[in-house]
Amino acid sequence: MLDELRSRLLEIDDLVAAGYLLSWDQATYMPNGGARARGRQGATLHRLAHEQLVDPAMGALLDGLQSHADALPPDSDDASLIRVARRDFEKAIKVPSDYVARANALGAASYDAWTRARPANDFPTMRPFLEQTLELSREYAGFFAPYDHIADPLIDDADEGMTTASIRKLFSELRRELVPLVRAISDQPQADDSCLHGAFGEQAQFELGLAVAAKMGYDLERGRLDRTHHPFCTKFSADDVRITTRVYAGDVARALFSTLHEAGHALYEQGVAPVLEGTPLGKGASAGVHESQSRLWENVVGRSRRFWRHFYPMLQSTFPDQLGRVRLETFYRAINKVERSLIRADADEVTYNLHVMLRFDLELDLLEGRLRVADLPEAWRAGMQAALGLAPPDDRDGCLQDVHWYSGGIGGAFQSYTIGNVLSAQLYAAALKAHPQIPSEIESGEFNTLHAWLKDHLYRHGRKYRPDEIIERTAGKFSVHPYLAYLRAKYGEIYRLPPTRQ
Amino acid sequence: MLDELRSRLLEIDDLVAAGYLLSWDQATYMPNGGARARGRQGATLHRLAHEQLVDPAMGALLDGLQSHADALPPDSDDASLIRVARRDFEKAIKVPSDYVARANALGAASYDAWTRARPANDFPTMRPFLEQTLELSREYAGFFAPYDHIADPLIDDADEGMTTASIRKLFSELRRELVPLVRAISDQPQADDSCLHGAFGEQAQFELGLAVAAKMGYDLERGRLDRTHHPFCTKFSADDVRITTRVYAGDVARALFSTLHEAGHALYEQGVAPVLEGTPLGKGASAGVHESQSRLWENVVGRSRRFWRHFYPMLQSTFPDQLGRVRLETFYRAINKVERSLIRADADEVTYNLHVMLRFDLELDLLEGRLRVADLPEAWRAGMQAALGLAPPDDRDGCLQDVHWYSGGIGGAFQSYTIGNVLSAQLYAAALKAHPQIPSEIESGEFNTLHAWLKDHLYRHGRKYRPDEIIERTAGKFSVHPYLAYLRAKYGEIYRLPPTRQ
Repeated sequence: MLDELRSRLLEIDDLVAAGYLLSWDQATYMPNGGARARGRQGATLHRLAHEQLVDPAMGALLDGLQSHADALPPDSDDASLIRVARRDFEKAIKVPSDYVARANALGAASYDAWTRARPANDFPTMRPFLEQTLELSREYAGFFAPYDHIADPLIDDADEGMTTASIRKLFSELRRELVPLVRAISDQPQADDSCLHGAFGEQAQFELGLAVAAKMGYDLERGRLDRTHHPFCTKFSADDVRITTRVYAGDVARALFSTLHEAGHALYEQGVAPVLEGTPLGKGASAGVHESQSRLWENVVGRSRRFWRHFYPMLQSTFPDQLGRVRLETFYRAINKVERSLIRADADEVTYNLHVMLRFDLELDLLEGRLRVADLPEAWRAGMQAALGLAPPDDRDGCLQDVHWYSGGIGGAFQSYTIGNVLSAQLYAAALKAHPQIPSEIESGEFNTLHAWLKDHLYRHGRKYRPDEIIERTAGKFSVHPYLAYLRAKYGEIYRLPPTRQ
Repeated sequence: MLDELRSRLLEIDDLVAAGYLLSWDQATYMPNGGARARGRQGATLHRLAHEQLVDPAMGALLDGLQSHADALPPDSDDASLIRVARRDFEKAIKVPSDYVARANALGAASYDAWTRARPANDFPTMRPFLEQTLELSREYAGFFAPYDHIADPLIDDADEGMTTASIRKLFSELRRELVPLVRAISDQPQADDSCLHGAFGEQAQFELGLAVAAKMGYDLERGRLDRTHHPFCTKFSADDVRITTRVYAGDVARALFSTLHEAGHALYEQGVAPVLEGTPLGKGASAGVHESQSRLWENVVGRSRRFWRHFYPMLQSTFPDQLGRVRLETFYRAINKVERSLIRADADEVTYNLHVMLRFDLELDLLEGRLRVADLPEAWRAGMQAALGLAPPDDRDGCLQDVHWYSGGIGGAFQSYTIGNVLSAQLYAAALKAHPQIPSEIESGEFNTLHAWLKDHLYRHGRKYRPDEIIERTAGKFSVHPYLAYLRAKYGEIYRLPPTRQ
């Protein structure tokens, strides 16, 4: 019976993986003409996977296996498989197939419209899409009633175990520290990041990022890097985890850190134990835990001084005309410049979370019905003014900037970024506690100890443990303190801030 | 009910298209590690598509639509759709699902083994695979008993309406002319093709082939060219038809003609009427008719003197050091050099069909049980000696050279190449009869008239007509004479042969 379950789950996994390949291809090599049919093909695979998952035979199998699962140690692979498969099944059967079809169709149409509306700064075109998306998100939440807050089911999908209440508490703790930190930094002389801007060969940038990712442990026999507009990491199997990046000739930092960010996601997926492959356990624990790995490798490691003590000479020799005479310290401050800005995706480590909080608050307002879609642009401007002291001149760099709301759902997407930031520091601190030599290894361009520790404590377990469980096993109870300590220490030093009272 | 049929067929088409993308990716960009899961994923999609096709509900729908079809003009889109869907259904239900699974599994394992066994010249490893494949092919034919010859069902799959008897007749007509033609050519002074060999930049070769294909009419908004080991054309939708090529720095002709060959296939698929998309009518009429288009564009057009009168200066300016001082006539003779050789895929237009006939005869012997797999290497050498007067020194360049037998089936694959050769000349002659200005247009690098005629008479109809019907509508009854006349005229001139008696 367990074999039958595995075989059904594998079939679903195959359909999902094929769907991911359709998306990867669309984002990398597909000719323009292919878009129309591709949307339909992706929807078909998605629908078939959903139909297989909600098949009553699946429910009967899971019922039949329950006593077997109960007799096993709860953290055995088999008990975990049955438990997680049941959780996915219970969620999926609450969502009618016609809803899935409607949501897919709207998501595709809305995304397509957004790709044109954003550059055209055309919020009015997106307004009806967004109104329908909001209704669909509310309808989706309704399938999981009762709940404490309408956003709870949406948050739980991305970050199992988190709720509106727990995120609000987290955000309020963070805000209390981040707002004064941003203010203190902005009172100091600004870092000069002009060394990052100029003319940098795109192919050289691409190859450099890939070489650094490979040094971190990204296995190119089981992965590859391609160019795209919106970088992402995608997994077709345990042995085929791909990343994408975008390259700007005028900015040497963006492609590099985008590549390291996606490589962090890929290290996680490449590190899942092979035995979990093709099952619902064979991927990262949650969106937030996943983001912790992209942030750990991009920021905690990739924007550290020790990291660049090793890699800066390589970067300089790649771009001798542009960087040959720029000091390491100048470069280090440039890549860690803190600045209030309009675009979340380009924001620095310190202000980034304020962007996330604005979106989270607006999502709650929309879902609760306190904010109308028509009033979103103005609410965005007001929120940016309050959070960061500047407002976008248009919607393109305002409420149209992120794809999330325009490709399928409102609620539950943004909090993962901040959870990831917080966890990145907590996990790194735990790794350091176990292996104090990690920083000096990084300074030699070695990442084996850190990578092996993460793989052993986090990656290999996939989705076997709940996010809070795996974090607690690995790094103790979820806490903002390591993250705040990390930011205070790093940016206190860079911006020469006076020591803060604890 | 017709809508229900269309919707079911569209779902099958989506699964098949996703499977094609899995294969394309495997042949182009997939990292090595991805192979294991990819095989399984492709098999899953293939199996699901087969299950959908043989669903009893499909049979009931087709039954229910029969009276509707009978009331329509037979060549209306709807009547054709119902007719062809029924034909596919009737064939598919004869094949048990467990057979499909066994054949897929064996095909994948055999192909995988062959990729190593061929370079290692290791026939003994492939022998058990080939024995099982032969058994499976015989078993497959058995599903369609009674038949006149065991190869008939296999041939009909690729070239509907053709039989062992009709192919034998065709081959005997061809052989009667080709053997003396090859002999007469080999009595003449050989062409010098040294100008094709040297050091030619790979990227420049790649781009040149693509530019020429685009000039022929290959629409790059709906297609693209990538590099691979074994070139092919694949279709994900009417608006996404891709080709691949391989490039050799040491040979300027191979990538170019491989690209034009695949572009011929792609012109056909890009030309199918949009209204047929996503149905069983939305692709080429048969393997042989498809091959006629790759051969027409690669050989009849692409290896003609008029074609190169236009394109040779472009080639020379791409490779001025290598070709700047080589005369057009020298180049023309080099790309049309006739030579008895070991490898089918590299054979010239005249000897090519002799390679095909050898394989066809061996397939019949194997299927009829007159030849044991163990004796195949020796039978191959004897056959090559008889047909071409030379025998391979090893199995690598003998019976291991083609992928076909080692990736799923024996019987029914090779005849299409020769049918394509024959049809390429017949169709071109018909186009010329309608539009005598085509050769002079080609000489100006213009292909619109030829392309439009082919699109209107052949491409747009997809699979609406049977192969023999569409050929008869377009170019009269299937005949070898235009092809033989084409070869005699072209090679008689190149090799200065005495005129033959008709």
